[in-house]
Amino acid sequence: MGERLVIIGADAAGMTAASVAKRRRRELEVIAFEKSAFASYAACGEPYYVSGDIPTLDKLIARTPEQFARAGIDLRHHHEVVAIDTDRQVVVVRNHADGTSSETGYDKLMYATGAVAAVPPIPGINRDGVHTLRTLDDADDLRSVATASRGRVVIVGGGYIGLEVAEAFHTRGWDVTVIEGLDALLPRTLDADLGAKVAEAAQTMGIKVRTGVMVDAIEGTDHVTSVDCAGEMIPADVVVVAVGSRPVVELAAEAGIPVGPTGAVAVDDHQRTGVEGIWAAGDCCEARHRVTGEIVNLHLATIANKAGRVAGFNMTGGDVAFPGTLGTAITRLHDLEVASTGARHADALAAGIDAVDTTVSGRTAAHYMPESSPITVRVTTERGSSRIVGAQIVGGAGSGKRIDVFATAIWEGMTAQGFEWVDLAYAPPFAGVWDISAIALRKAAEDALR
Amino acid sequence: MGERLVIIGADAAGMTAASVAKRRRRELEVIAFEKSAFASYAACGEPYYVSGDIPTLDKLIARTPEQFARAGIDLRHHHEVVAIDTDRQVVVVRNHADGTSSETGYDKLMYATGAVAAVPPIPGINRDGVHTLRTLDDADDLRSVATASRGRVVIVGGGYIGLEVAEAFHTRGWDVTVIEGLDALLPRTLDADLGAKVAEAAQTMGIKVRTGVMVDAIEGTDHVTSVDCAGEMIPADVVVVAVGSRPVVELAAEAGIPVGPTGAVAVDDHQRTGVEGIWAAGDCCEARHRVTGEIVNLHLATIANKAGRVAGFNMTGGDVAFPGTLGTAITRLHDLEVASTGARHADALAAGIDAVDTTVSGRTAAHYMPESSPITVRVTTERGSSRIVGAQIVGGAGSGKRIDVFATAIWEGMTAQGFEWVDLAYAPPFAGVWDISAIALRKAAEDALR
Repeated sequence: MGERLVIIGADAAGMTAASVAKRRRRELEVIAFEKSAFASYAACGEPYYVSGDIPTLDKLIARTPEQFARAGIDLRHHHEVVAIDTDRQVVVVRNHADGTSSETGYDKLMYATGAVAAVPPIPGINRDGVHTLRTLDDADDLRSVATASRGRVVIVGGGYIGLEVAEAFHTRGWDVTVIEGLDALLPRTLDADLGAKVAEAAQTMGIKVRTGVMVDAIEGTDHVTSVDCAGEMIPADVVVVAVGSRPVVELAAEAGIPVGPTGAVAVDDHQRTGVEGIWAAGDCCEARHRVTGEIVNLHLATIANKAGRVAGFNMTGGDVAFPGTLGTAITRLHDLEVASTGARHADALAAGIDAVDTTVSGRTAAHYMPESSPITVRVTTERGSSRIVGAQIVGGAGSGKRIDVFATAIWEGMTAQGFEWVDLAYAPPFAGVWDISAIALRKAAEDALR
Repeated sequence: MGERLVIIGADAAGMTAASVAKRRRRELEVIAFEKSAFASYAACGEPYYVSGDIPTLDKLIARTPEQFARAGIDLRHHHEVVAIDTDRQVVVVRNHADGTSSETGYDKLMYATGAVAAVPPIPGINRDGVHTLRTLDDADDLRSVATASRGRVVIVGGGYIGLEVAEAFHTRGWDVTVIEGLDALLPRTLDADLGAKVAEAAQTMGIKVRTGVMVDAIEGTDHVTSVDCAGEMIPADVVVVAVGSRPVVELAAEAGIPVGPTGAVAVDDHQRTGVEGIWAAGDCCEARHRVTGEIVNLHLATIANKAGRVAGFNMTGGDVAFPGTLGTAITRLHDLEVASTGARHADALAAGIDAVDTTVSGRTAAHYMPESSPITVRVTTERGSSRIVGAQIVGGAGSGKRIDVFATAIWEGMTAQGFEWVDLAYAPPFAGVWDISAIALRKAAEDALR
C-alpha cells in the first residue's frame, strides 16, 4: 500500500497543503476530513455576502469536492476527527452523516483545524439575535437577518471583522453602533490615534462608535432588546459579537501534540509539530513574526495559505522554511482604507528594537484632482540604522495597498535612508510627484538618523 | 557681495533646486528667470483640466511667485535667458515685459529649460485647430476648444499624453480617434501585446484607435477638416499632436555646455554639466537608467524633481548622487490603469541582460467581489538569477499602483525567487489571497531558474 496523507480540516491551510503535496507526489493518497458541509471557503468574503456585494454564498467556495476529486484528493464532508493516536498513527473519525465512527491510518498527518469565533462570557450572550461571523452558516444567518428588516445592530468588537460587518449593515440601511473595549478601533493593528481617525470617519458616515467601554450584558427576554454598555442601555435588534477568534487545539492537545505559548499548536519553520510525521498550518498554529522574531498566532488567510504551502512541500521531501509573517492586514470602511504591516512602536520596543515613529499626512493623488483624498502614513524605523520595521496607513481610496511597498521594504530589510529616491509611480490621479510613501520614508530617515 | 545662484527655467527641476539650495544656504542669493508667465506648474495635470476634472487653471500652480519670494527666491516671469557666457559667468536676459536686455552675473548656474512639445513635419500642421499640450496656455486653449462645442477630435500619438487627452475629450462627449504610428499604443513603455489590450479597452469605451499607420497630412482650408491617414480621410474638427517632447538645449549648446548622445544636456550623477559651476536637471538633461545603465532622456516629473533636489544639494556643498531612474510611469484611460517600470525584454537584452518574460492574468480583487476586474502583469527577470529587471501592468482600478512593489523590488535588486512569500496585503476588496504580483513573481522565478 502506498503512502497516505490525512488532512484534518479542509480549509485554506489544509487544502493548500493537500494540493501542493498531491501535485508533488502523484502516488500519495490524500484524504481530507472536514466536519462541516463546507471546505476551502473564503471566510474573509463573508461580510460582503452579508452586505449583498456578493449575490450567492457559493461564490465564496474556492473549490468544490468534485474539483478536489479531480485533483486526486478525497475530501469527506461531515467527517469529524475526534481523536488522534500518534503511536498507532490513526485518526478516529465520526461520520456525522450516518453517525458511525471509524479509524483511518496515516503516514503523514496535517493538523489544520483553524479557529472558531471567540465568545466572551457576557451575560445574555446566548439570547436570540446574538450572532458571530465565522462559518458560512453564520454568514447565511446574518444575511437573512440583515435583509429581513432594518433596525438597530450593535457590533461588539471594533477589529477588522467588526468594521466589515458594520459596513455591511450600514450599506443595508441599519442603524449601526460599534463598541470596542479598548481605547480605539482596530487596536491590534493601528495605534490609538490612527484608530481614532477611523472612528471619526465612521461617525461621519453615520456609524456610531463607542471605544474604551465594555459590554456588561446583553439584555432582553428571549430576544435581545438592548446592550448594557457600562450602564448605558443601547437599543439593539441584533448583536454581532466580533471579538476575535481562538485556535482549535483541543484535539491536538489531547493527542500530545505540543501547544505553544500563544495557546496555538507549536510548529517549527517547516510547519512540523512536536510529533514526528504531523504538520500544522493556519489559524490553529503559531508563526514567527519576521521583524520581532516573536511567536504569534495571527488568524490571517495569507499566513494559512503560505504555511499550508510550506507544509505541503516539506511533507513530500521538500525543504522550505516559512519565512515569517509581517502581519500585513488591510480593510476598508466604505471609502476609508486601513492597512498595517510589521511592528508598531510598542511591539518593536518589546523586541529590543529602539523604535522611532514618523507620521506624515498628505493626499492620495495630486492635490488638485477630484479623487485626491487625505492619507496618513506612520512609519516605524530603528533608530541609528533607519531600518524600516513597521507601517500603518489610514486614508481614502488608493491608500491601503500602498502598504505593500512597506511590506516589501520591511521584508527585504531596507532602510528609510535613501528610499526617497525609489522610482515610485506618479501621475495626478494616483499620487503626488513625491509619493506620500517616499515623503514618509524621507522624514523617517531624518528622524531615525538624527 | 554674497554668492548668487541663477536658475534658468522655473519649473520642477529648477525650482526644486532653488528651494533645496536656499534652505541649505540661507545667505545664497537665488534668482530664477522664467520666460513664460507660469512657474512651477503641474504639466501632468493639464489633461484633467481639459476634461474638467480640475475646475480652474490656478490649481495647477504648485507655488506662486509670492510664495517663492517668502522663501527668499527671486522669481522673475517673462525673463528669458538668451545667452550664457560661461567665461564671464553671466547670463544675458531679455525682459519680455519691457523689451530690455541686461546681464546678470552668477556664481552657480542651474540649467533647467525643460522640454517643448515635439512638432512633426506633417503638411498642414500649422492649420487652425491643430494643438499641442505642454504649457498652461496650451491647456487653456485646448479646454476652450473642448468645451465650446462637441465634435470630432483626432489625436496624433498614442503615448501617455495622447491617451490622457483622449480620455479628456471622450469625457466631454467628443468623437475621439487616436492614431499611433508604431504598432501599438504606449509603445515606449508597454510591449505591443499589452498595448493592444489598451487599444481594445479604448475601443470598447468608444474611443477609436488606429495603430501602425502614419498621418500623411492635416487637411483643410484655414481650419482643419480631416486627417489624411495613409490615404484614408478621417474627419476632424480638432487635432491634438501628442508625439512626445524634445529637450530644450539650444542655449546650452551655444554656450558650449556639452550635449550627450540622446540630444539632451549631459550630466554626471551629481547633475553637474561639463562646465564647472553649471548644473542641469529635468527634461532638458540626461539621466542614467538604473537597470540597464543606459543614458536616457525621459521627460518625467519624478526625475525632474529628484534630479533638481540632487542639484540643489550638490551646489551647496552636498554630495548626493542621483541613483538612476527606472522610468516608472503610470496612467489611466477611464477605469483602465497602465503602468510600467524598469527594463522591458528588448531593453534588457540590449543591455546584456539575458531576459525572461513571464506574464500572468488574474483579478485585481477576490474573484467574487463586484470591484474585481482583470489585470495582466508581465515581469521581466534575468535568467539564472531571477533578478527582477522590469514589470508592466494593464488592468482595472487598483492595478496601476501595484507597479510600486515592482519598482521597489527592482530598485533593491531583489530576485523573483522567494518573493512569493512576501507578506503583501490581502482582503477581498483589494486582492486575492495570493496577490497577482506574488503569483507573477513565483512564476517568473520558475521561468528564470528553469
